[in-house]
Amino acid sequence: MAKLRGKALVAQSGGPTTVINSSLCGVIQECARSGDVDAVYGAHNGILGVLHEDLFDVTKESAEIIEGLKRTPSAALGSCRYKLKSLEDSRRDYERILEVFKAHGVRYFFYIGGNDSMDTADRLAQLAREEDYELRVMGVPKTIDNDLAETDHTPGYASEVKYLATTVMESGRDTEALYTFDTATVVEAMGRNAGWITAGAAVAHRVEEDAPHLVYVPEIPFSVERFVKDVKAVHGKLGRVVVLAAEGLQDENGNYLTSQTGSFAKDSFGHVQLGGVAETLKAVVEKECGLKCRYNKPGTAQRNAMHFASLTDVNEAYMVGAQAVKEAVAGKSGFMVTIIRESDRPYRAGTGLAGLAKVANGEKFLPRDFMNEAGNHITDKCARYVRPLLAGEAPIKIGADGLPEYVRFKRYPVGKKTAEYKA
Amino acid sequence: MAKLRGKALVAQSGGPTTVINSSLCGVIQECARSGDVDAVYGAHNGILGVLHEDLFDVTKESAEIIEGLKRTPSAALGSCRYKLKSLEDSRRDYERILEVFKAHGVRYFFYIGGNDSMDTADRLAQLAREEDYELRVMGVPKTIDNDLAETDHTPGYASEVKYLATTVMESGRDTEALYTFDTATVVEAMGRNAGWITAGAAVAHRVEEDAPHLVYVPEIPFSVERFVKDVKAVHGKLGRVVVLAAEGLQDENGNYLTSQTGSFAKDSFGHVQLGGVAETLKAVVEKECGLKCRYNKPGTAQRNAMHFASLTDVNEAYMVGAQAVKEAVAGKSGFMVTIIRESDRPYRAGTGLAGLAKVANGEKFLPRDFMNEAGNHITDKCARYVRPLLAGEAPIKIGADGLPEYVRFKRYPVGKKTAEYKA
Repeated sequence: MAKLRGKALVAQSGGPTTVINSSLCGVIQECARSGDVDAVYGAHNGILGVLHEDLFDVTKESAEIIEGLKRTPSAALGSCRYKLKSLEDSRRDYERILEVFKAHGVRYFFYIGGNDSMDTADRLAQLAREEDYELRVMGVPKTIDNDLAETDHTPGYASEVKYLATTVMESGRDTEALYTFDTATVVEAMGRNAGWITAGAAVAHRVEEDAPHLVYVPEIPFSVERFVKDVKAVHGKLGRVVVLAAEGLQDENGNYLTSQTGSFAKDSFGHVQLGGVAETLKAVVEKECGLKCRYNKPGTAQRNAMHFASLTDVNEAYMVGAQAVKEAVAGKSGFMVTIIRESDRPYRAGTGLAGLAKVANGEKFLPRDFMNEAGNHITDKCARYVRPLLAGEAPIKIGADGLPEYVRFKRYPVGKKTAEYKA
Repeated sequence: MAKLRGKALVAQSGGPTTVINSSLCGVIQECARSGDVDAVYGAHNGILGVLHEDLFDVTKESAEIIEGLKRTPSAALGSCRYKLKSLEDSRRDYERILEVFKAHGVRYFFYIGGNDSMDTADRLAQLAREEDYELRVMGVPKTIDNDLAETDHTPGYASEVKYLATTVMESGRDTEALYTFDTATVVEAMGRNAGWITAGAAVAHRVEEDAPHLVYVPEIPFSVERFVKDVKAVHGKLGRVVVLAAEGLQDENGNYLTSQTGSFAKDSFGHVQLGGVAETLKAVVEKECGLKCRYNKPGTAQRNAMHFASLTDVNEAYMVGAQAVKEAVAGKSGFMVTIIRESDRPYRAGTGLAGLAKVANGEKFLPRDFMNEAGNHITDKCARYVRPLLAGEAPIKIGADGLPEYVRFKRYPVGKKTAEYKA
């Protein structure tokens, strides 16, 4: 494959994670090492930044800031949830993106995101081929939800789980101490329609006394009646109960246990905004079981908990970012870098490639045998899958004030501007 | 003062904290060093454990478990919210406690708790004097709320703040990356009627971009109208907004912004159960400001976050526990050990003593000059008070599975039993 010289553009999309900036760091530093990439441009707020030509020259940022990305949560470039549809339905957007790429001499596009982002990247690669513009497009996997097809797991997942498991463990100690008064606690986990996060955090339960005592995932239809029975049984045995529940719990008819109504009920991807499961279950526990119940909802904190992130996750996030560059420079295009688990003990992982179309819009759900028959806790098989990913604590920098120091880009603007984008 | 030989009884009361077990460790280890204490008995679930004679012999626990208390959150002895009233109104309970103390040869009582606990300890000391039973009673301060009188701050507060500030900082990075979609976030802080926690966590705001952008404490009457104006102003400037709100916000008439109704609306102390401020403010932001809003409610996780606790806090918690023993052995009784701030730079603190009655039922509110004139953020004075307390990260033990390992007592029962307690 012929060498391709040009600029690289990198963007981050969708919900932030603790380690998405490690992937970004991998992309930036590997581009610098490659010799074929003249500069790396960052798009401000994902694909929106490309459409609006809101780009900045990451190459001009200090080495300290670039290196600091590895210990900075959330998306340093800014992210978005702007959804492009098919090439036919969103042709003007795709053409605009390519126009911007051409104007700036962008020959490499690295998109760090989930399945929707892989879809966008795939269609963009298609348009570039149609227009005979040489562009190498690589996807870098990212999602706390761990629901991407073709990869053993996704960067962001392990740090989410390490933090949430610890949070559940610590919430459990609270209930254990105060059960004569606060007898039950519900912790709400993210993860949309996939139970990976919830099941993952359930590894906090090492012995019978440990929280969580009950675990509910969206893949198994939720029955209030069975839930009440479960809670009563645990309470009868331990005198207390900590429930870990996924935000996306659904009843037997596929209706969310709770879903918001009103003008912000759906995001621009058409996904229903979830939330309220913890409040709902708390009310059930108090009314149906007669137990005082609290609920904890870590919310977005759980996907940005750099202060207790998995070192394995940070390293793998960097690895897939750097590998995407290596593959692209070597001539590959139209792939997402995947993580291949090579060994469990000792844990060892390498990278592979999957076609963007295969990943796009796919969803990988929690296998049924990761949950017990009763559907209220995980199996050993699940624990064996999750545990190796949580190893190590990522180093952070603590300021003189005792709090973490995270970096921000200076955002040196890219001079040249083409025509304004009109949505 | 004559030497007093006998057993010591230690109990933990009220809401758990990250470092209440460090105080317990200080009590136990100092008792062992003292030479005057024959054994240390722990009461299971606070004063309830004394009433029901549910005691165990802490002295028999392994040195490893005792030492492990320093890195274990929540109340290892178990806690409670059982409220004793005045000596007149709860005389039978106080007499029962003394009866149990006498039966077991308990001559030292260390009560780790908040103002209600100091009240109980004070009245118990009074009854012992009346009955001419030599008993040395010492209070060890504990509360995340930091609302105890007579002490510069309370153990538990700093770790709560260190964690919550970090959580707000990290939640802020999420909103910063995704503001084109999730424009606003509300984080709900504990603290009941005191704004110490909320104001403390506001130190996460180092520069204008940093969360929290708006901060509301219970001491300043909350106006929805002014809140809406504040949110719109920050949004106009930054394009996003992160609000940190205390659970105990009240309107100009002293009504809680939201309070639960139903059978669990009040605890046994008669305190109204708070919660729901975050949901309420989220609804206001969406309806009145037209901004998509999320909310994070760390709940009980915030007071047990050993995985990112303040080393200063852990050390001070140990110090006040050990000091209580030293003072009691030296002949003092009827005091709570206080923390005296000797210097800010470098930070240095020592201990003092305050009469239990002076601490009992007192509440120390956030000084008005810790908040700005608009009542929507903290002042430098507040930050100077808070920051030194957050220094250092307490060491924890991480298991092979990448999660913290916390200890539990084996609970060796105390043989002798007197008559059953009848409530």
